Amino acid sequence: MKDIAIFSGSAHTELAEEICQYLSVPLLPSRTSRFANDCLEVQLQANCRERDVYLIQPLVPPVQENLVELLLLLDAARGASAARTTVVMPHYAYARSDKKDAPRISIGGRMVADLLTTAGAGRVLTMTLHSPQVHGFFSVPVDHLHALRELAAHFQGGDLSNTVVVSPDLGNAKAATAFARILGVPVAAGAKQRFSDDQVVITDIIGDVTGRDVIVLDDEIAKGSTVFELLERLRERDARQIRVACTHGLFSSNALDRLQAQEDVLEVVCTNTVPIGKEKRVPKLEVLSIAPAMAEAIRRIHNGESVSSLFH
Amino acid sequence: MKDIAIFSGSAHTELAEEICQYLSVPLLPSRTSRFANDCLEVQLQANCRERDVYLIQPLVPPVQENLVELLLLLDAARGASAARTTVVMPHYAYARSDKKDAPRISIGGRMVADLLTTAGAGRVLTMTLHSPQVHGFFSVPVDHLHALRELAAHFQGGDLSNTVVVSPDLGNAKAATAFARILGVPVAAGAKQRFSDDQVVITDIIGDVTGRDVIVLDDEIAKGSTVFELLERLRERDARQIRVACTHGLFSSNALDRLQAQEDVLEVVCTNTVPIGKEKRVPKLEVLSIAPAMAEAIRRIHNGESVSSLFH
Amino acid sequence: MKDIAIFSGSAHTELAEEICQYLSVPLLPSRTSRFANDCLEVQLQANCRERDVYLIQPLVPPVQENLVELLLLLDAARGASAARTTVVMPHYAYARSDKKDAPRISIGGRMVADLLTTAGAGRVLTMTLHSPQVHGFFSVPVDHLHALRELAAHFQGGDLSNTVVVSPDLGNAKAATAFARILGVPVAAGAKQRFSDDQVVITDIIGDVTGRDVIVLDDEIAKGSTVFELLERLRERDARQIRVACTHGLFSSNALDRLQAQEDVLEVVCTNTVPIGKEKRVPKLEVLSIAPAMAEAIRRIHNGESVSSLFH
Amino acid sequence: MKDIAIFSGSAHTELAEEICQYLSVPLLPSRTSRFANDCLEVQLQANCRERDVYLIQPLVPPVQENLVELLLLLDAARGASAARTTVVMPHYAYARSDKKDAPRISIGGRMVADLLTTAGAGRVLTMTLHSPQVHGFFSVPVDHLHALRELAAHFQGGDLSNTVVVSPDLGNAKAATAFARILGVPVAAGAKQRFSDDQVVITDIIGDVTGRDVIVLDDEIAKGSTVFELLERLRERDARQIRVACTHGLFSSNALDRLQAQEDVLEVVCTNTVPIGKEKRVPKLEVLSIAPAMAEAIRRIHNGESVSSLFH
Amino acid sequence: MKDIAIFSGSAHTELAEEICQYLSVPLLPSRTSRFANDCLEVQLQANCRERDVYLIQPLVPPVQENLVELLLLLDAARGASAARTTVVMPHYAYARSDKKDAPRISIGGRMVADLLTTAGAGRVLTMTLHSPQVHGFFSVPVDHLHALRELAAHFQGGDLSNTVVVSPDLGNAKAATAFARILGVPVAAGAKQRFSDDQVVITDIIGDVTGRDVIVLDDEIAKGSTVFELLERLRERDARQIRVACTHGLFSSNALDRLQAQEDVLEVVCTNTVPIGKEKRVPKLEVLSIAPAMAEAIRRIHNGESVSSLFH
Amino acid sequence: MKDIAIFSGSAHTELAEEICQYLSVPLLPSRTSRFANDCLEVQLQANCRERDVYLIQPLVPPVQENLVELLLLLDAARGASAARTTVVMPHYAYARSDKKDAPRISIGGRMVADLLTTAGAGRVLTMTLHSPQVHGFFSVPVDHLHALRELAAHFQGGDLSNTVVVSPDLGNAKAATAFARILGVPVAAGAKQRFSDDQVVITDIIGDVTGRDVIVLDDEIAKGSTVFELLERLRERDARQIRVACTHGLFSSNALDRLQAQEDVLEVVCTNTVPIGKEKRVPKLEVLSIAPAMAEAIRRIHNGESVSSLFH
Repeated sequence: MKDIAIFSGSAHTELAEEICQYLSVPLLPSRTSRFANDCLEVQLQANCRERDVYLIQPLVPPVQENLVELLLLLDAARGASAARTTVVMPHYAYARSDKKDAPRISIGGRMVADLLTTAGAGRVLTMTLHSPQVHGFFSVPVDHLHALRELAAHFQGGDLSNTVVVSPDLGNAKAATAFARILGVPVAAGAKQRFSDDQVVITDIIGDVTGRDVIVLDDEIAKGSTVFELLERLRERDARQIRVACTHGLFSSNALDRLQAQEDVLEVVCTNTVPIGKEKRVPKLEVLSIAPAMAEAIRRIHNGESVSSLFH
Repeated sequence: MKDIAIFSGSAHTELAEEICQYLSVPLLPSRTSRFANDCLEVQLQANCRERDVYLIQPLVPPVQENLVELLLLLDAARGASAARTTVVMPHYAYARSDKKDAPRISIGGRMVADLLTTAGAGRVLTMTLHSPQVHGFFSVPVDHLHALRELAAHFQGGDLSNTVVVSPDLGNAKAATAFARILGVPVAAGAKQRFSDDQVVITDIIGDVTGRDVIVLDDEIAKGSTVFELLERLRERDARQIRVACTHGLFSSNALDRLQAQEDVLEVVCTNTVPIGKEKRVPKLEVLSIAPAMAEAIRRIHNGESVSSLFH
Repeated sequence: MKDIAIFSGSAHTELAEEICQYLSVPLLPSRTSRFANDCLEVQLQANCRERDVYLIQPLVPPVQENLVELLLLLDAARGASAARTTVVMPHYAYARSDKKDAPRISIGGRMVADLLTTAGAGRVLTMTLHSPQVHGFFSVPVDHLHALRELAAHFQGGDLSNTVVVSPDLGNAKAATAFARILGVPVAAGAKQRFSDDQVVITDIIGDVTGRDVIVLDDEIAKGSTVFELLERLRERDARQIRVACTHGLFSSNALDRLQAQEDVLEVVCTNTVPIGKEKRVPKLEVLSIAPAMAEAIRRIHNGESVSSLFH
Repeated sequence: MKDIAIFSGSAHTELAEEICQYLSVPLLPSRTSRFANDCLEVQLQANCRERDVYLIQPLVPPVQENLVELLLLLDAARGASAARTTVVMPHYAYARSDKKDAPRISIGGRMVADLLTTAGAGRVLTMTLHSPQVHGFFSVPVDHLHALRELAAHFQGGDLSNTVVVSPDLGNAKAATAFARILGVPVAAGAKQRFSDDQVVITDIIGDVTGRDVIVLDDEIAKGSTVFELLERLRERDARQIRVACTHGLFSSNALDRLQAQEDVLEVVCTNTVPIGKEKRVPKLEVLSIAPAMAEAIRRIHNGESVSSLFH
Repeated sequence: MKDIAIFSGSAHTELAEEICQYLSVPLLPSRTSRFANDCLEVQLQANCRERDVYLIQPLVPPVQENLVELLLLLDAARGASAARTTVVMPHYAYARSDKKDAPRISIGGRMVADLLTTAGAGRVLTMTLHSPQVHGFFSVPVDHLHALRELAAHFQGGDLSNTVVVSPDLGNAKAATAFARILGVPVAAGAKQRFSDDQVVITDIIGDVTGRDVIVLDDEIAKGSTVFELLERLRERDARQIRVACTHGLFSSNALDRLQAQEDVLEVVCTNTVPIGKEKRVPKLEVLSIAPAMAEAIRRIHNGESVSSLFH
Repeated sequence: MKDIAIFSGSAHTELAEEICQYLSVPLLPSRTSRFANDCLEVQLQANCRERDVYLIQPLVPPVQENLVELLLLLDAARGASAARTTVVMPHYAYARSDKKDAPRISIGGRMVADLLTTAGAGRVLTMTLHSPQVHGFFSVPVDHLHALRELAAHFQGGDLSNTVVVSPDLGNAKAATAFARILGVPVAAGAKQRFSDDQVVITDIIGDVTGRDVIVLDDEIAKGSTVFELLERLRERDARQIRVACTHGLFSSNALDRLQAQEDVLEVVCTNTVPIGKEKRVPKLEVLSIAPAMAEAIRRIHNGESVSSLFH
């Protein structure tokens, strides 16, 4: 068995350290320098030769800085004769650029996948891609995890007798159904109606929410517009207390402050695929760690054990 | 300007001939032989050298035969020094294999896209892909048309004052909305609820259909299960007369006979992206030709004019 | 040493099972589904991660179905993080398309080799290619076996004192000479004369066959035209009893029935590189198994032992 | 002749506009959007089909933002069926990462060249690469201009009778010699002595500078440390008035303010390969335009005329 | 139409000049330098930008020198922005390494084809490859000419009433039959019998040669062993006067002197695909020029006309 | 751990054998044949399957022969299923072709790097490249050694109290400084002044050499022009005894005889990266072996240990 060697870029060293703790291996040192002309240079500061190398770097803001750093890390690992390099990318921001819905636009989700391969990625470990088709953008093997078990575990302690899981739209309904099944509760979903190319509004909720305790489940929350719209629909239907859960807590603008201000929102739960600065940590926010899951997936990949069986 | 040279595989020569008529160029002859050992060999029987070559072949049943024939046609065109070869593939059946929803399955939509590139495709012209992300599976430029204008033109002659367009699910709702806007009518959509991984049922219809004349719009109809389920929901809501429209009329099993047998279904409208044998042609079926649209796209591609402006 | 994982496509599961028996490893399960639109999807139903994967699939009729299934199996193995994937293809039908003897035709033998690489083949194990140059069409390592020892063993029990091996043409004479040397008998060969581009006739036999027991040896028999022509020449020269042997028994049309009907043909011997349905199994037919040879080659490949030394 | 289509990224639109003015063609519109998750998306807002596309984007700070934007522009041009895409990159910042002088570091100059090819670059037009070997990092054709004629023209009006060109080090001496020859003056060079791996000091000046008017010529000035060191050596040797010239005026930190403060420095001359904000424009700074040279090179590339003859 | 630009390596400048004369275009100058360390460097000394470039270089002795020079010429043409580069290689020596008939040997015919593509070849124009399968070793389009018409024209003036064309082996019989048909005479062929792996002897001649005037036709003659063996067989069968013809006159060792010394050999005819030094030019040798054929093929390739129709 | 398998081409078998002795492994047999048409064929005469293969072949004269032989060896190793193939190339002659300093010339250093990859090189082990940027020409990992410790060890026994290391130019000064530091002596360097594009002359020496014992250190000596020029400058400055050291002793023309003839040159020291024939071995020449260093690097590469730490 080849030795394992785990490095982290600058995007989320806290997560990298946590993953290494679960694996009982050291997070190996690396160095990223910025030159006077703003170019980056990276150095892996431990032997990689014939090692099974893992580079932990979610594509989170500043996305372009983190992406180029990741590409340079891949180049350094290849040049250092790594046996195989796996990109551990719990959040792949460019997955949202997955189609060509206007003439002559870039499809960033596919192009960045190609860049990673060019730079030397031999495999990708990621979590909850924006659409499942993005998996097919990669020409290298992808292990695609989700965080439903971690999110469900958070809620399983409480009283779920009157609870319903609500997906903001039907695109996410498959995940919401799986989530509800783990919790043993029913599922509902917002129905988005499109009034024009640009204007999409949640006009309806499929399934019964009246008088229910609601857990809203989405894959990611950035500005939160969809969630706020869903909250209005839920209130119109007299839902009871509301909790909001998502995997990728991007929380741009003042999304967290606004969620904190909603009286009927008891809790906002996300995972640590995206680092959340202390200034953002409002009282209602609960951040769950996906480090154990990522660590277990790395262990299985490294040992040649099935990763899919993790989810069954 | 380079000369144009258009060939057809065996999948749909009728469409190829019609496209060439609109372009006022001859459909050049090719020959596909089958050897005693079941292998295929193709020959392009007209000079391709430095020509702008178009190979017309939708991926329709028998899909594997048509796919390998197309790959051999590409190989022959490259070997014959074609300047550039465009695959004209009005129906891309493998687009449905676009994600990995079970462990260790193939993602045919991406792999076939790679095979086409390997065999020599320099560009792809296609219509109404199953999901818009499939566009990103190709590493060569893709011109992705739709048939909404052709389908709309068919209905625009009649009385649409009481009509609503209904999409069987919300995934197709964007196309249905655009279609409804061309017709100047409202739009509704079936809401699919997922009860388990395998069981998805239309439980609701978002938007008003009671007492309305309905045009059901889907991207493709194969066995027709979704449409038949939608018909039940429409009847429960007392919709009036129903017409069914789609782009890709695969109509496997006895779908057309069953649609013909529905009393409240006045008409089934599809396009000729997929060839429909005479034995399938029930009285209620109306097949519209997308040959003019494909021909115009080829003309623009060949002349370096914008294709996207075709749709605006 | 990496674990071995052997799967089979639909082309010849009987051979796959026999190979696995010789290796004392299980044939792992896989599933091939056909969708309503005639597309195939495959699933490897056992863990492949970091395994040394072998996919057993001769390219036999229906060739296009079997080829696309094989490509999907390769894609699935790559996506499932197989360490290395070897295509075990005892018969490579497209090897006959190995040259460009008419303008603008496909060279299927090269193109299919490229498709296999695109889909993820890392190595190929095959038997008795139509021409030895086809080896060079592959950009991945090829282990190229022959079945001369198996065929010879079949005849070695009997009285060979009056026997001569006859090759139908001089192209196959090298194999026939090696075969005769194993048997310790002389060799002769038909000489084909070309009267026009299309008409090639065996006009002569080089070597003495009069009054001899003849073993005709060819690489493959499909329609059998060459063999029947050779039989006439042998009769003209008063050969005695005749036995016919080949590696790839394709036996298209009614070749086997016609061979069965030849009074002076005592026996038709082939191997099981190509599956032979029960309806074809005439009394004179003898099918030898190459499963032990393929199994031994797989064992050596897997263990890093020399395969070429198998033949010396 | 194919039509030309010129677009600009965000890095230096002013230069792009000036180049287009010299070519008498419009700078075509493009749009760069930033999503809530910090990802970029670009759109080329004019038809590119079969056009000869030029994307003007020097790699200047913020380098990572500008690099990813450029890669997305390339992807968009490819997807939009551009006939050929040329990257016009007057400054290639990553050229400084051109060797592996420590273990396990990235070689950004090579990797970024590969990324550009992956994203669709068919050719590169650049100016004064940090080392001439960087040319060989690209797998696509590179047209490599210099700005010596523009810089020389600036000085040719004045009295050069007592002038000497001084290169800060011998690495740049070839350019300095060519520059001095255009001006018809002698050349000298600083000699750097290395005291340890990290410490390199100009200890000597080869050639006579005493009592001379000096023009210091370097390829780029960022922090300016080398220049300031050279100034000390020149003063020790009693050089007279000093003018400083370079191609790439990066001027990081407060380099320009410090140069402005040197009494014996009469003038600082650079070109506009790098945009220089108004806040940096000290009185002694003179910025020459390389737009005419870039425009002429583009014209020649587009017309298939020799670019190298521009310099002879 | 793009401009044409023709260059020659060192292998056969005489042929290159003759081809250019037929095309009425200048042979453009190039320079090959050899450094003190024995490395080669080439320079194309005329503008190639956007030109349709042809590099004339048969792979003849010294093969390695000529091959590397050709690869450098390709690299220079690519770097100089040639629109497309065609390798004009009338003799491809490595075509003889076309199979793996011993363990762990190189297949030079395929590998060199790959090297040419890597260095930038976009197309190959060649003549009479050793085996037709070698065509499939190239991943770029190949135009494969033969010289049968040139060779036939040479003999058509004389009295052919008693003539037979004889191929030394049945592998070359297809070409010999085509050649005989042009001349309107019958054809015969030597039959090689293999006694062991290494020893192959012509033991028979298929067809009537007794009392006939014989034209021996082979694809290439190097040491001439096969021809000398055939001569013995012909004499045993009392053939009359003999003339020897081939396409590639390699004539290694003292083959020409030995042929000159055969009293019954009236003439040795070859083409100029391989340069033949003055010291080799024995009185019986006649060298025909394939320059007109190569020139016409280049003209057609350049103009996008059919090359295959040249031969029908 | 995979088994190791070491082969040598024809370039320098003596070095290969010495390396194998240090590794205590046999140099495995290979065979290079030259056909009548001057083509080469190689055979690896020991099992390579799944082995970690090393091919020892410096690119030394005859460079083209050795290069093509190396490419064929790589092809043979790939075809023989080697697990990984490392090119051990202690001298890379084409590294001198590293830039485009004239229009339309080849950049051989990059192109040959690409050829090696095409033929199957998975890694390169080399020594003292002409410029450090050449490292970046390779798309596979490169381990780049130097011979400073070997050269220093040679001098460390003697009296170095009055010694100075002199680099002929400032380009090599970094290596000279490191060398001087190992010896504990000061360093000086020649300063080359360029009078025109072609004429570069050492006009000065930076650092004190008067009355000193000098060790001239260069990376390679071919014709020796630079060294002879430096000797003149040293004599003008009254240097004492002189010793000349370099890594790559190409010694073309009569460089060694001329060095032998210099009275004040006590010794010429080089390594055995390049084979030096007995006829060249003048009395003053001392050849040091880099076999131990290469062997140690191979051992570390094979075992996955750090190579860079060899130098610290």
